[in-house]
Amino acid sequence: MSVPPAVARWTTTFIVDESRHELPDPIVVEEPLEIWLAGPEGDSRSRLAVTLRSPGHDRELAAGLLYAEGIVESAADIAAVVAATEGHELQNVGRLEVRLAATLPRSGGAGRPFLSTSACGACGKEALDAAFATGFPSLPPGPRLTAGLLQSLPERMRSAQAIFEQTGGLHAAGLFSPDGELLVLREDVGRHNAVDKVVGALLLGGRLPAGETVLALSGRAGFELVQKALRAGIPVLAAVGAPSSLALRLAARAGMTLAGFVRPGRCNLYSGAERVV
Amino acid sequence: MSVPPAVARWTTTFIVDESRHELPDPIVVEEPLEIWLAGPEGDSRSRLAVTLRSPGHDRELAAGLLYAEGIVESAADIAAVVAATEGHELQNVGRLEVRLAATLPRSGGAGRPFLSTSACGACGKEALDAAFATGFPSLPPGPRLTAGLLQSLPERMRSAQAIFEQTGGLHAAGLFSPDGELLVLREDVGRHNAVDKVVGALLLGGRLPAGETVLALSGRAGFELVQKALRAGIPVLAAVGAPSSLALRLAARAGMTLAGFVRPGRCNLYSGAERVV
Repeated sequence: MSVPPAVARWTTTFIVDESRHELPDPIVVEEPLEIWLAGPEGDSRSRLAVTLRSPGHDRELAAGLLYAEGIVESAADIAAVVAATEGHELQNVGRLEVRLAATLPRSGGAGRPFLSTSACGACGKEALDAAFATGFPSLPPGPRLTAGLLQSLPERMRSAQAIFEQTGGLHAAGLFSPDGELLVLREDVGRHNAVDKVVGALLLGGRLPAGETVLALSGRAGFELVQKALRAGIPVLAAVGAPSSLALRLAARAGMTLAGFVRPGRCNLYSGAERVV
Repeated sequence: MSVPPAVARWTTTFIVDESRHELPDPIVVEEPLEIWLAGPEGDSRSRLAVTLRSPGHDRELAAGLLYAEGIVESAADIAAVVAATEGHELQNVGRLEVRLAATLPRSGGAGRPFLSTSACGACGKEALDAAFATGFPSLPPGPRLTAGLLQSLPERMRSAQAIFEQTGGLHAAGLFSPDGELLVLREDVGRHNAVDKVVGALLLGGRLPAGETVLALSGRAGFELVQKALRAGIPVLAAVGAPSSLALRLAARAGMTLAGFVRPGRCNLYSGAERVV
């Protein structure tokens, strides 16, 4: 599958004070990706979702989304991920077909009316009870982090972000070890896609649950992001932005450490404060 | 329908430098809202969407979402919007039932597998061609704005934002007249919901298409936000953040003025630069 470049050029009029200039400007690429489910041989094909995403790491995005939705539990559940672009009338529209190792039961995930965009993921589920009904791995009691290390993670992530520096238009999710080593970094126009790509990379690498790790987020911490991290067994979430009330309630009930407004010298701990020393 | 408060208190551990304090912290409320469609008498009920949103202006949110999806064209298409909360097992889950003036055909919008979250809206549609297929009002040739006025709009919006100032957790959408008067302001955890609420307010007030107005956005300008503004006939979009490639292509094709990185003294014009003088 050809991956379109994640940055495009656009002739843009820059107005700065009284002056006006036309220049080619780097723009973050947003393109639809259709995700289809099928049986092991490409049989029983059905469309699961259309997501608006930054092209790149699409297999990981699809795997992470399927994991978040409870459709697969491990890499062994995925027989293959193949490009499926023929017969499509639009240019630059990607189609991926995820062939499952076992054909889905008709009452399973694929039969559910479910469509995803840049920020979907928990669509159609009913908040906290439904979130727990999907099944989360037990969170480890650790890691124990110093506040200073926790506060440094968004900056460490930012310094590794390639596309944002050019376009200013991307969210990032970065998985860190407890001593601050960056393990996986993914960027996307959608916050939820960035997390799906990280979790998909872990899934395809046989590295779930994630164990004693920290997930840093470039934006706010909403309900669905906490849900995706919990599903991956990540015990600590460090967001640059604010959390929502539903996100806090979910994190607290699951025993996750949820930090917001994380920056050098400060952070707010909303739950699981015992992991930060 | 009782509307939960849009700000909740949460006992939060604040870490600032070496000190650690527990304080009640204002948190933006995020709660699911189910939107049901029904016939004029509450007949033929079906669930259209579940969205995670900030409670408040829920009728406008539902009306705006239905308009964006092409399910209604004017306030006359909506017979009533009623609360529908009985028989639901979760606390704090809102249900609205939109009773349409005419029963939907079975092949219409309600039959489409469609679910919405904080950032849904164009789910299941196929990018640019599909966007135009939904039908946009013609954009007016104006307004003509000075760059200085355009650049001031996000600050004017911010000064009117009540909830963000407390929580740091909300997006805003504000409709302005060409001389900078704020006409409608709505806040939400979801960028798309904030725009749906603005458009829903216009729809219910019989004020669509919006005419020579400017919509200011607190965040980035993605495809679905441009699509929602076009559908409302809004000719100018001024975003604090970056646009995406798909958003630019849609705006350019429709003749919309799309400005990004809008702040005092500067902005970038990606299309329709002739409206800014």
